[in-house]
Amino acid sequence: MADTIRVAMAGLGIAGRIVLPWFNRTPGVELAAVADTRPPALEPFRARGLRTFDSVDAMCRSADVDVIWIATPNERHMEHVIMAADNGKHVVCEKPMALNLPQAQAMIEAVERNNVKYVQRSKVFDPPVRKMREVVASGQLGRVIQINSWNYRGWLVNNTFLSTELDTERGGGLTYRQGPHQLDIVRSIGGGLVNSVRATTGRWSQDFDTEGNYAVFLEFEDGTPALVSNNAYGYFDTGELTWGIGEGGPQVPVELLYEGKYRQMRPLDPKEKYALPRYAGPADQGTQAGLGEGRHHQPFYGLTIVSCERGDVRQSENGLYIYTDDGRSEIPCEPVAGPRNEVAELFAAVTENRPSVVDAHWGMATLEVILAIRQSSAERRDVTLEHQVPFVGLWT
Amino acid sequence: MADTIRVAMAGLGIAGRIVLPWFNRTPGVELAAVADTRPPALEPFRARGLRTFDSVDAMCRSADVDVIWIATPNERHMEHVIMAADNGKHVVCEKPMALNLPQAQAMIEAVERNNVKYVQRSKVFDPPVRKMREVVASGQLGRVIQINSWNYRGWLVNNTFLSTELDTERGGGLTYRQGPHQLDIVRSIGGGLVNSVRATTGRWSQDFDTEGNYAVFLEFEDGTPALVSNNAYGYFDTGELTWGIGEGGPQVPVELLYEGKYRQMRPLDPKEKYALPRYAGPADQGTQAGLGEGRHHQPFYGLTIVSCERGDVRQSENGLYIYTDDGRSEIPCEPVAGPRNEVAELFAAVTENRPSVVDAHWGMATLEVILAIRQSSAERRDVTLEHQVPFVGLWT
Repeated sequence: MADTIRVAMAGLGIAGRIVLPWFNRTPGVELAAVADTRPPALEPFRARGLRTFDSVDAMCRSADVDVIWIATPNERHMEHVIMAADNGKHVVCEKPMALNLPQAQAMIEAVERNNVKYVQRSKVFDPPVRKMREVVASGQLGRVIQINSWNYRGWLVNNTFLSTELDTERGGGLTYRQGPHQLDIVRSIGGGLVNSVRATTGRWSQDFDTEGNYAVFLEFEDGTPALVSNNAYGYFDTGELTWGIGEGGPQVPVELLYEGKYRQMRPLDPKEKYALPRYAGPADQGTQAGLGEGRHHQPFYGLTIVSCERGDVRQSENGLYIYTDDGRSEIPCEPVAGPRNEVAELFAAVTENRPSVVDAHWGMATLEVILAIRQSSAERRDVTLEHQVPFVGLWT
Repeated sequence: MADTIRVAMAGLGIAGRIVLPWFNRTPGVELAAVADTRPPALEPFRARGLRTFDSVDAMCRSADVDVIWIATPNERHMEHVIMAADNGKHVVCEKPMALNLPQAQAMIEAVERNNVKYVQRSKVFDPPVRKMREVVASGQLGRVIQINSWNYRGWLVNNTFLSTELDTERGGGLTYRQGPHQLDIVRSIGGGLVNSVRATTGRWSQDFDTEGNYAVFLEFEDGTPALVSNNAYGYFDTGELTWGIGEGGPQVPVELLYEGKYRQMRPLDPKEKYALPRYAGPADQGTQAGLGEGRHHQPFYGLTIVSCERGDVRQSENGLYIYTDDGRSEIPCEPVAGPRNEVAELFAAVTENRPSVVDAHWGMATLEVILAIRQSSAERRDVTLEHQVPFVGLWT
């Protein structure tokens, strides 16, 4: 393999569009091709001379691609990851990894039998999450004793969803689609090994027939508890408590978070959705998160408080607050938005021939928590987990 | 009974001292007597001509008293409530009601066979809690779908404890002593009927051998979940997120909440503790919470977010924020600190001969949750409850 890895994007929906601007900004990485089933989505790339494919299958068979970035609908992740691996390509896979554990197991087997790398797209790559994990792992505050994470944000009403994207059986709804973000944060800080889950999910939107909130108690193997809450209906927004800074790092006046504003009140059909400017415009200019739109900070995924034996940690406006017997101090944090760290991790894993910190086993473990949340809610009981893996070390 | 009810205070520790200044400020109520086993604590009252007793037993037998306010050590609540009831006195009992369910059951029986009133000292009397319950009960936002409550405050290091007051088996520690406050708030807003509890408690202080944090998932009978968290080690303080306003309603510059400050790092012996000015001074001037010490607001017990089908509710600086599809609005709240509402409720229950809104059955139900938190933590499993009662109506 050359010094440059050639990445191909499978799927030009919103997940792909967030990532695209970052490839050519990362040393050693170049965007080599894109695939989508919608010809108009491909057109701007063809016009720029990129290779375009109308199927992921054809792109996976191309000799001019090293890595397939899977940003297709959730229900097709397994098929596309296996397809890429069987063609000898490395993969980065969007969350959720898959819809169920047999799918995840099949993906692991495909990756391992083909000896390719799998990197899970994950919030563990966000600088403040990495930094919180570093502080905890350093032992300076003693062991972790409790993690609390609240996210209130109008994910359900501030996005544009097809009804298929809201169908839980097809990987839709808050638990499948946002749960992996929040649980990856909590699992990485807590060490990874979740022992049991007790949870309730809610479907309370009048407008969308899907899960819009969850409340989770989980216990790590060493007994450490975590309380994890998410609410996507768009009323109170945790940004009010985090300096107006939201998921990607953009900062807005907090008034914008609670003033009556436009809310998307129904699912769209494909024709409506893909006529919107953010989907119809040039794909890699459609979403420029982190690329100079207004003031930018480190990303916040709600409000997370990590308690240790001898102190607490939470995000500050531009870093972390550390609370000890001596009071509060602040340490800075790299203000990177977007998936640059996933790209760098993939590059390092491929060029150094080592497993990713968040590989397919990690992805399956987080998926197991997501499925346990749904099961606990349905059966109103504690669910014990069996496929957990530890968070191993820190990457560079 | 006359138009005035004569209240006698059993126990002149910190709980009693918070209450004392309020009796003579409440129409129809007068402080008639006090009891304590420590002669110096009684002296200032004797000097003012009040009746003083060196035992609760003797005070309960006095004909000049209508109500006994039980603020004795937790392990003696049962004995003193039964003693008061058997002497025909009404009672107000501090939290926790008792140490276990058989004690609570015996207290209920004593109250009922003597046909006296029992009022549980409770945060449900705090104006913002009442107001949140009112908004929820009005149905304007649809049903409650989730309640989240976080309290981070250095209860363990900002108080002065005897080692006996930290012994969990004697009703000490965070779960017994602060849990009833937080669970009363959550139960009243959620309707009262808790179905099950999954929880972990922690004993992580290097200095105090007692419970200092808990993480609780509870589910109401109708399926509504609540996540309830408390951390008393004194690092991060939720006051940073609530305008510097704390439990009793006093507001301080938020810097005071996180600057390195004096921390009490060990239990005291009785001689040390009762030599402190706050215990050695005139009892009803020792604690003047809510009586003009600096700027005062409605009380905050950490940060509570109530989510309903069509909106969220949380406390604002001086009232409540209500979030709906139309944005955020604010409604005011009475800024009362201290136990004036308990006194008024007791007065109304006695003079109108009706049960208190939070009677002994309510107290037992909250105690059951507290015990379930401890049991779930010990056995690492869901605990189902059997003694829950609904929150009935609103008082005036």
